Amino acid sequence: MDYEKLALETHKALRGKIALALKDTLDSREKLSTYYTPGVGAVSSYVAKHPEEAREYTWLNNVVAVISDGSAVLGLGDIGPYGALPVMEGKCMLFKHFGGLDAVPIVLDVHSADEIVAAVKAIAPSFGGINLEDIAAPTCFEVEERLKAELKIPVMHDDQHGTAVVVLAGLINAMKVTGRNLQDAKIVVAGAGAAGTAIIKLLHTYANPRIFAVDSKGILSANRNNLSDDKKHLLRLSNLQGIDGSLEDALKGADVFIGVSKAGLLTSAMVKTMALDPIIFALANPIPEILPDDAKKGGAAVVATGRSDFPNQVNNALAFPGIFRGALDNRVAAITDQHKIAAAKAIAGLVSQPDPLLIVPSVLDPRLVETIAAKIV
Amino acid sequence: MDYEKLALETHKALRGKIALALKDTLDSREKLSTYYTPGVGAVSSYVAKHPEEAREYTWLNNVVAVISDGSAVLGLGDIGPYGALPVMEGKCMLFKHFGGLDAVPIVLDVHSADEIVAAVKAIAPSFGGINLEDIAAPTCFEVEERLKAELKIPVMHDDQHGTAVVVLAGLINAMKVTGRNLQDAKIVVAGAGAAGTAIIKLLHTYANPRIFAVDSKGILSANRNNLSDDKKHLLRLSNLQGIDGSLEDALKGADVFIGVSKAGLLTSAMVKTMALDPIIFALANPIPEILPDDAKKGGAAVVATGRSDFPNQVNNALAFPGIFRGALDNRVAAITDQHKIAAAKAIAGLVSQPDPLLIVPSVLDPRLVETIAAKIV
Repeated sequence: MDYEKLALETHKALRGKIALALKDTLDSREKLSTYYTPGVGAVSSYVAKHPEEAREYTWLNNVVAVISDGSAVLGLGDIGPYGALPVMEGKCMLFKHFGGLDAVPIVLDVHSADEIVAAVKAIAPSFGGINLEDIAAPTCFEVEERLKAELKIPVMHDDQHGTAVVVLAGLINAMKVTGRNLQDAKIVVAGAGAAGTAIIKLLHTYANPRIFAVDSKGILSANRNNLSDDKKHLLRLSNLQGIDGSLEDALKGADVFIGVSKAGLLTSAMVKTMALDPIIFALANPIPEILPDDAKKGGAAVVATGRSDFPNQVNNALAFPGIFRGALDNRVAAITDQHKIAAAKAIAGLVSQPDPLLIVPSVLDPRLVETIAAKIV
Repeated sequence: MDYEKLALETHKALRGKIALALKDTLDSREKLSTYYTPGVGAVSSYVAKHPEEAREYTWLNNVVAVISDGSAVLGLGDIGPYGALPVMEGKCMLFKHFGGLDAVPIVLDVHSADEIVAAVKAIAPSFGGINLEDIAAPTCFEVEERLKAELKIPVMHDDQHGTAVVVLAGLINAMKVTGRNLQDAKIVVAGAGAAGTAIIKLLHTYANPRIFAVDSKGILSANRNNLSDDKKHLLRLSNLQGIDGSLEDALKGADVFIGVSKAGLLTSAMVKTMALDPIIFALANPIPEILPDDAKKGGAAVVATGRSDFPNQVNNALAFPGIFRGALDNRVAAITDQHKIAAAKAIAGLVSQPDPLLIVPSVLDPRLVETIAAKIV
């Protein structure tokens, strides 16, 4: 199906995908006097004195901001706030449909970490949680770190942590399918931006496997003189052997390839150089690093992509609705590594009998949100 | 009815009054692929290239931010963002119910004009219009002025201009009822904050009547050495005779009293000193400057308040839904004095036979929004 054409037509016909709904009607003077003046004055007065109870009298208990500056939208790059808005509206739909959460798209006309942090802090009392989205690395790291430190509501950059959670979930089951232990695995992560960094950190925390990070210039190593501070930090978690080389060098004998990079990066020939029965997560969107058929030609035992039209869709939508549902319901002020690991295990656990074509549940699995939310405590 | 008790109970039971609604379901992979990836990528790509068409593909064409820093909430004063949130949610309900507009409550954790302007500018691409609300004077003046100059979407501080529009509408009909001309009237405005300032400016622009502004220290005059810059500016529009004195002094022989000040400011005895058949707009909320019965004892021919339980409710809700409906539908980038005057005339015109108990239509009048919106062009 031509989803691009369909999407353009549908979006134009609907003029946006979300709307405001009222929890009650306003069709009488009595209701106006209850929900607005004079009655609401008593509510405001009470909440001002007891701000910790604001969530009991307003939609704070259920509302998440989906915030982007449009600097790294899907595979489209820095297309600005207006370009980002359709994606943020879509994310709000997913929040509502899957998580029952009210979500508001906020696109920003500022791009420096200082300005983004200032804007989000300024509007933070309006929301119960903050989902950062499609903000380019390395700005996204500083923005998230500062907001987590300065706000008392959950803040999560989904491109980092949603992706890391779902990758870990998929790997847990891929290990079972291929009879491996994650702590003994050699893992190559291609792409050292937002998603790659978060994946490496979470895998390190969870099982401390042998990880090699690869960017467009090769394996991240201490001998490279072109590494950003964030990439230098990854040297504490990856390539402890200190080897130098290309993606091809890293892949030799590797058990797992995780691509969060670009279309067509991986070939069948390269897969053949990996360990027996390798695991391939080719997550570049919309075109993966290698198509599943080509990966299998190279000997891959398990292949996952980010796409809905192939088996094993490793997609953030598996994780973020449940994570925020749990964080808001359980009044969790910060989403920790332990929460992420618990969420990954919960997602993996929903597949009772993993097999090469079924390592993660469907994003439409109705058990997902409730199962994950129960772990975010 | 005890609206305070009812409001507290109802707000707690509902946990907020608004929610997100989806314009379509998300119950299939096809719809996920249309509204989210991969389909939405084409929409984002198109909108990024044609930002002026963003409103055709997103909810921008119908969404207004209701923004407050909580520094002047109802009669409660500076109660902060959490205290403000129930009022802003209520305002969003009114926007939706009366204007069919999607509205999002944004409460700010910053209070200086610089910080408020920076925050609103940062999030402005998310909205089709900005309704500023319950921001204290004089900050509100600078904030609105700068945002109007720097943004290309309509920005209106409703406490100023919504109030001024509805006061003018009521006065137009009160003049008819008492056989007066507005340009010949002597008008005393008690309260020289956000609402008072905007009322004086709009009345001056519309009919240039004789206006006297009175604050808690007496008549605003050039002899006062305690006037803020904003109040000094009002000397160009009011008290051109340069008299000094108290509210009592100003009221002698006045045709109209407009109170946007505080409960109980006006007495029957003071009304008796006004011209024959005076007009009293006692708009302090929730307790007016004088109760209608007391005003009538003093000889008032027409009495209006802000309350729904007395006749002649002069309430912003008569104006703002139609003004923003029109501004968004007609792609109006700035709401001008001409728009405000046209809106006031439209509201007044909905009362075909004004009488002392009917100078403005009911806020529940179904013709209001459409009639006003047609004038915002």
